[in-house]
Amino acid sequence: MTIERSPHDLAPFAVSMGDPAGVGPEIVAKAWAVREAQGLPPFFVIGERRAIEQVWDGPIATISTPDEAVLHFGSALPCLQLDMGGEVTPGEPSADGAQCALHALEIGIGLAKSCAAAGLVTAPVGKTQLYSVGFTHPGQTEFIAERCGIARNNAVMMLAGPTLRVVPVTVHIPLKDVPTTLSIELIRARAKVTAKGLRRNFGIEHPRIAVAGLNPHGGESGNLGREEIDIIAPAVRSLRDEGLDITGPHSPDAMFHGPARENYDAALCMYHDQALIPLKALHFDDGVNMTLGLPIVRTSPDHGTAFGIAGQNIASPGAMIAAIRMAEKAARYRALMETDGCSDIRTGTGVE
Amino acid sequence: MTIERSPHDLAPFAVSMGDPAGVGPEIVAKAWAVREAQGLPPFFVIGERRAIEQVWDGPIATISTPDEAVLHFGSALPCLQLDMGGEVTPGEPSADGAQCALHALEIGIGLAKSCAAAGLVTAPVGKTQLYSVGFTHPGQTEFIAERCGIARNNAVMMLAGPTLRVVPVTVHIPLKDVPTTLSIELIRARAKVTAKGLRRNFGIEHPRIAVAGLNPHGGESGNLGREEIDIIAPAVRSLRDEGLDITGPHSPDAMFHGPARENYDAALCMYHDQALIPLKALHFDDGVNMTLGLPIVRTSPDHGTAFGIAGQNIASPGAMIAAIRMAEKAARYRALMETDGCSDIRTGTGVE
Repeated sequence: MTIERSPHDLAPFAVSMGDPAGVGPEIVAKAWAVREAQGLPPFFVIGERRAIEQVWDGPIATISTPDEAVLHFGSALPCLQLDMGGEVTPGEPSADGAQCALHALEIGIGLAKSCAAAGLVTAPVGKTQLYSVGFTHPGQTEFIAERCGIARNNAVMMLAGPTLRVVPVTVHIPLKDVPTTLSIELIRARAKVTAKGLRRNFGIEHPRIAVAGLNPHGGESGNLGREEIDIIAPAVRSLRDEGLDITGPHSPDAMFHGPARENYDAALCMYHDQALIPLKALHFDDGVNMTLGLPIVRTSPDHGTAFGIAGQNIASPGAMIAAIRMAEKAARYRALMETDGCSDIRTGTGVE
Repeated sequence: MTIERSPHDLAPFAVSMGDPAGVGPEIVAKAWAVREAQGLPPFFVIGERRAIEQVWDGPIATISTPDEAVLHFGSALPCLQLDMGGEVTPGEPSADGAQCALHALEIGIGLAKSCAAAGLVTAPVGKTQLYSVGFTHPGQTEFIAERCGIARNNAVMMLAGPTLRVVPVTVHIPLKDVPTTLSIELIRARAKVTAKGLRRNFGIEHPRIAVAGLNPHGGESGNLGREEIDIIAPAVRSLRDEGLDITGPHSPDAMFHGPARENYDAALCMYHDQALIPLKALHFDDGVNMTLGLPIVRTSPDHGTAFGIAGQNIASPGAMIAAIRMAEKAARYRALMETDGCSDIRTGTGVE
């Protein structure tokens, strides 16, 4: 089937459903329901249609290619159907569901890589369930990086809300391992990907990065820890010498209030919760996880499967909506700059 | 001089000026200037009058005893004068200034202990300066605890804003020392002082405490660190068995958004920035530091000397105002419950 698109139109966005027993099916459906009011671009969900039907009674259109999504998007939620074995029960994750989530992720990556999808938005998966079916990556991000041929260290997690963007230098490791994992090279690598990612995905020509310290008050000149002196400050200095607009190390507790946030486009944080605590305190309902450093656009809502509330029709689609919208913006900035492999299609006249 | 007070009146509050070259003099004066609009109780400042005159041209009344503060409070900022050697220059801290700040703190503690002041509010000091004049405590809090005959571990720092109260279990230590410093006993001790402090100082009869985990996502069942399993959970369980309304360990990044904050009266945090980052992100301008576990009421604005902006008339008195107000509330709750040594005076008819 050939779909005519006007020049500069994007392909539809792929949304992997995540664990069918989590809130993924519900928030995707709810996002579709408000597509017009929210001005969302065409998207389709990849996963088991039954999981959506269990929690939502709106129209669903089964599709077999992404382009069909554009045809149906106005009247039904397009679903690239993946048959999952066994029953789907909201709130009760299973190995079959994990397998289905992994399958959806794999297909979504492939479609985004081939430019059949303008980007990939991933709904949450249950890691315990994924591990049980042989998944060995720390999370979806690392899996996506590998499939894109990107070294893990170069695929960087950014969490973004309306007034704050954060990038953790270390992520899913025990807190006790953070000080020994930090290095000048690691901070430099993360900062560079962050700067490039802000340009590519957010259209910020001259990105400003603020780097957090590790210790209370940024170590108080070494009295409360030396990582600022030995690792963080040298990294910041060398990056500044190379022309980056980067400051720090800052006292971690003094860089996340309103006026401080106006001084940077992204905060580079030393560990998971230094980044996630302020982001979620400020933007719990609309925080988006965007992976920087990938050839494809990839975002996800910044929350988990929430098995405990799945199927109760109380999950907020806010973060999913924000994730779809952020993916669209990133795809448009990339298309404008023609910096990725899909730009030939996006500026073209059609695709089959 | 004998001052008549109506029954249940509190003594005036002592405000130690902190470093004369910091923002302390300015924010105390600004707080006095809005005393009526803000409904502040009578207070007096302890410090070098010249430091205030340099940054403020309002009326100052030199007093020699706390009770004179009540007489003058309506028309001038009462100042218990401490002569400081040398010049006072805003933004330029000196050893003389540090000495003066320490002297003011010492006098303030004495007046609160003797009940001549209903409580002590401390403006910020410069630690580097204090260390240079022989101060050996980590901060004002530990100094106050010692002067009150309280073991350091039993004087507990709480940071409180309008929608969040946090208590860090470990405070001014390098992040790398946090995992090895945490213990079941330390968490238990902090939790107990916190529960008692919420009753005594905030009038919360049945305080609810939420305990944070240490690692990302609370350790993910041991996959990202074992402190939750080995230390935090056992501490929480034992406290719950003893009747405390306490929950956790919670995923640190999921406990500080609005709806989560409604589930507890205080969050018990494992390290400085886990507590201070959300508190300051949400309440940068009106966060108050209150010391729990002391025989006296003690609060302070949750910010530093801000030497960089001292003397420019741009410092916000918000946190100082909030600190004075919180001290007053705590003193009133204590008086109501007659749980401290000043209640005989507070319910009496006069004091000289």
